[in-house]
Amino acid sequence: MSQTLTNKEITPRSKDYSQWYNDIVLKAGLADYSAVRGCMIIKPYGYTIWEKMQQTLDKMFKDTGHVNAYFPLFIPKSFFSKEATHVEGFAKECAVVTHYRLKLDESKKEIVVDEEAKLEEELIVRPTSETIIWNTYRNWIQSYRDLPLLINQWANVVRWEMRTRLFLRTAEFLWQEGHTAHATAEEAIEEAERMLHVYADFAENTLAIPVIKGIKTANERFAGAVETYCIEALMQDGKALQAGTSHFLGQNFAKAFDVKFANKNGELEYVWATSWGVSTRLMGALVMSHSDDLGLVLPPKIAPLQVVIVPIYKGVEEMEEIKSQVLPIIQALKEKNVSVKFDDDDKQRPGWKFAQYEMQGVPVRIAVGKRDLQNKQIEIARRDTLSKELVPIENAVDYVVNLLNEIQKSLFEKAKKRLDENIYRVDTWEEFLDVIENKGGFVYAHWDGTSETELKIKEETKATIRCIPLGNPLEEGKCIYSGKPSKQRVLFARAY
Amino acid sequence: MSQTLTNKEITPRSKDYSQWYNDIVLKAGLADYSAVRGCMIIKPYGYTIWEKMQQTLDKMFKDTGHVNAYFPLFIPKSFFSKEATHVEGFAKECAVVTHYRLKLDESKKEIVVDEEAKLEEELIVRPTSETIIWNTYRNWIQSYRDLPLLINQWANVVRWEMRTRLFLRTAEFLWQEGHTAHATAEEAIEEAERMLHVYADFAENTLAIPVIKGIKTANERFAGAVETYCIEALMQDGKALQAGTSHFLGQNFAKAFDVKFANKNGELEYVWATSWGVSTRLMGALVMSHSDDLGLVLPPKIAPLQVVIVPIYKGVEEMEEIKSQVLPIIQALKEKNVSVKFDDDDKQRPGWKFAQYEMQGVPVRIAVGKRDLQNKQIEIARRDTLSKELVPIENAVDYVVNLLNEIQKSLFEKAKKRLDENIYRVDTWEEFLDVIENKGGFVYAHWDGTSETELKIKEETKATIRCIPLGNPLEEGKCIYSGKPSKQRVLFARAY
Repeated sequence: MSQTLTNKEITPRSKDYSQWYNDIVLKAGLADYSAVRGCMIIKPYGYTIWEKMQQTLDKMFKDTGHVNAYFPLFIPKSFFSKEATHVEGFAKECAVVTHYRLKLDESKKEIVVDEEAKLEEELIVRPTSETIIWNTYRNWIQSYRDLPLLINQWANVVRWEMRTRLFLRTAEFLWQEGHTAHATAEEAIEEAERMLHVYADFAENTLAIPVIKGIKTANERFAGAVETYCIEALMQDGKALQAGTSHFLGQNFAKAFDVKFANKNGELEYVWATSWGVSTRLMGALVMSHSDDLGLVLPPKIAPLQVVIVPIYKGVEEMEEIKSQVLPIIQALKEKNVSVKFDDDDKQRPGWKFAQYEMQGVPVRIAVGKRDLQNKQIEIARRDTLSKELVPIENAVDYVVNLLNEIQKSLFEKAKKRLDENIYRVDTWEEFLDVIENKGGFVYAHWDGTSETELKIKEETKATIRCIPLGNPLEEGKCIYSGKPSKQRVLFARAY
Repeated sequence: MSQTLTNKEITPRSKDYSQWYNDIVLKAGLADYSAVRGCMIIKPYGYTIWEKMQQTLDKMFKDTGHVNAYFPLFIPKSFFSKEATHVEGFAKECAVVTHYRLKLDESKKEIVVDEEAKLEEELIVRPTSETIIWNTYRNWIQSYRDLPLLINQWANVVRWEMRTRLFLRTAEFLWQEGHTAHATAEEAIEEAERMLHVYADFAENTLAIPVIKGIKTANERFAGAVETYCIEALMQDGKALQAGTSHFLGQNFAKAFDVKFANKNGELEYVWATSWGVSTRLMGALVMSHSDDLGLVLPPKIAPLQVVIVPIYKGVEEMEEIKSQVLPIIQALKEKNVSVKFDDDDKQRPGWKFAQYEMQGVPVRIAVGKRDLQNKQIEIARRDTLSKELVPIENAVDYVVNLLNEIQKSLFEKAKKRLDENIYRVDTWEEFLDVIENKGGFVYAHWDGTSETELKIKEETKATIRCIPLGNPLEEGKCIYSGKPSKQRVLFARAY
């Protein structure tokens, strides 16, 4: 069983899941801690994965009619306060700029903040950009002809979290935030749902992470939204992870920033809004969905390097022979848009290289030795199952191309099976507790629809309502906690 | 003459050059003012140009062995102070984060900074990232095997400028900053020079902006650098614009952050460094290099849209006929990677569209009417010269492809001619003043090599030494200002 293999640099999942996650993030070169509290450094290998996510999503956004723009990092405190729910949601985690100059304190011989350079109005480092963007849209939107406005921004944002974890929860993170403006509520809702489907498509077909699409309860809604749509994924430890959200904002921000348009009859109406975002948090979801005790496991579509070829040789002559045999394979793979590296570094032994590429989650590893060449075959290993096969050299290219597709598919199916098997339909509080405490996964149970009950369940079990699935059937029942009448089941879980 | 044509939304250059620039940036949809002092909004059309710059540069960086990563937005004040020259250079223009929470002031009923959430150590919003990056490199570099480290970052930075101008000088701007670490001074210098050449190549061959490569005097050097290399361009109003810089940092940051490596003999040495960057300032250079009184003029290689086709028609039938004729042309152009749009919007008249695309600098405009089709020809207009030609439909695709190349080349040559004609070799102070005050452009004159003289010239004329050109010949002479002996001429100009 693959699960029993270990790498001594990585704590096994069974021993300490949380440490396992940190070990992979650090040892595979995805991210590093920084000297700034709660801020991470995204290392080159991790950043390359993020770039691939960006490229794929960016194309999906553009294919659905969106354009990119860039808005200021800073938000005046007064803007921030204009939408009441919004400021309430974010006020407690804001980095605040109060001064714009340092100076040398001659007596202490140190650099200090220049108190004379105090800002008249404090600036908030954006935790999200609805306010600064809707303040701008007021100038950009006059008539129905200016709508819809379909804009996305790739940016860094800051939320001063008290407990941080690499990728999953950091004070500064990278994300994209779409902000669209529409003439009707229907059109805005359609947009919010469209982007939810784009996110689900990306998570499932690129990251191989199956998700449940749903809507949030009022408690879990984005601060300022009328409706929050989300995709929820399930990690290997049975905890849920919110992988993306899309909000129908109603006219809340249009009213707060007085953004009106003249409709076809010349009447002024407030504009309807959506916003939607995914972040570097997806990196955490990616790690926790597929990886094992040997390190990272990456779906081929998001892997910076899809295939590595490691020569097993003694001396220059054998190396040259191997090279001459594999170069045509490399060439042919590149022509099929497969990223491939021939690792001829002579400072490291093959065993060390194998462990390294396993750690980094390279989907396919090819080993080529002298004897293999004599038999006109090469050894092809897949990272996800750790199985190996001897393949005739002449079939190698097609074999690898098929294998990459197979790995992509197989990773999704494995994760989908885990998700499906870990949704528990329960009808008693005892069963609920048993799943939450002992099994992990989602609990699909009746809820009386009140925030009060939801909060009590959270207090007692740390489980929250992750979502009400889209297309959820109505069903009469009794609330799992209060016993009061319920109209539908919802999905509970402990979550990241 | 094209120069006499005007667009009533744009102030002519002859009337007010500075206003002309602002008009184009605003009216062509490149950027907008924001509610935050000194911060701009990059609008979708402007951002698309910036994305094209990023894509081209990013490929050039990767082709020269660099990888991307991401470091924190915030820098602890103490880090910032470690390199003495560096902090001196940036201390006066820093945005400082002092608190991490807001709260509701119950008595005033307003949101205020929570004084209980004061940071122990203030955080500086990065104006550049040498300090936070070199503090990280200490953990990443142990041995010569870890070198070179060739990392680039795409990021936003903040420098609290007092007088700001869209793209040219903004409090927040977007840029890339390369930060490399090397085992020897020679290798670091080679890297700094390599990246200077990459920048020059990009400016000239993609943006069609000719540049002079050179080194800065001590006065104009980056704060913390041993040597600053730069590319300098000349705008249409005769002012110079620094379009990119590359710094050899010596061991300054390695010493400040104690970054040492074991060399091949096992001895510890300080690491050698470079940093290099270009920013959204290039957008300003692009506008001012090529545009005219009708609006933006864009080199085809950086234009978001290269060709627009405008139908001149009456009624649905004519439109359908035109469409059937131009669709194969559009298809063929797309296959040749030409971006093309067929503007069949029936809410606007052709004349309005012509003016709009001229404003936005679309390099080639094709107009097709019923009579043209009868003659089996279409009208192709180029934005840069405003000339038009009737071209047989069957030749249209090849003609357009050649024309795009021709426009790219021609824009560069026109700008190159302007640059060459505006470098004045002068030997007297009177001539110097005449060029600076009346002609504009670069003055190539003797200088005694002292910062004192350089600063006096700046004080009296606002002209600074833009650079000492690479490969500048040594030549005995007398300083234009002090009359003292000089070993070489240098390039002076007023600059943005």
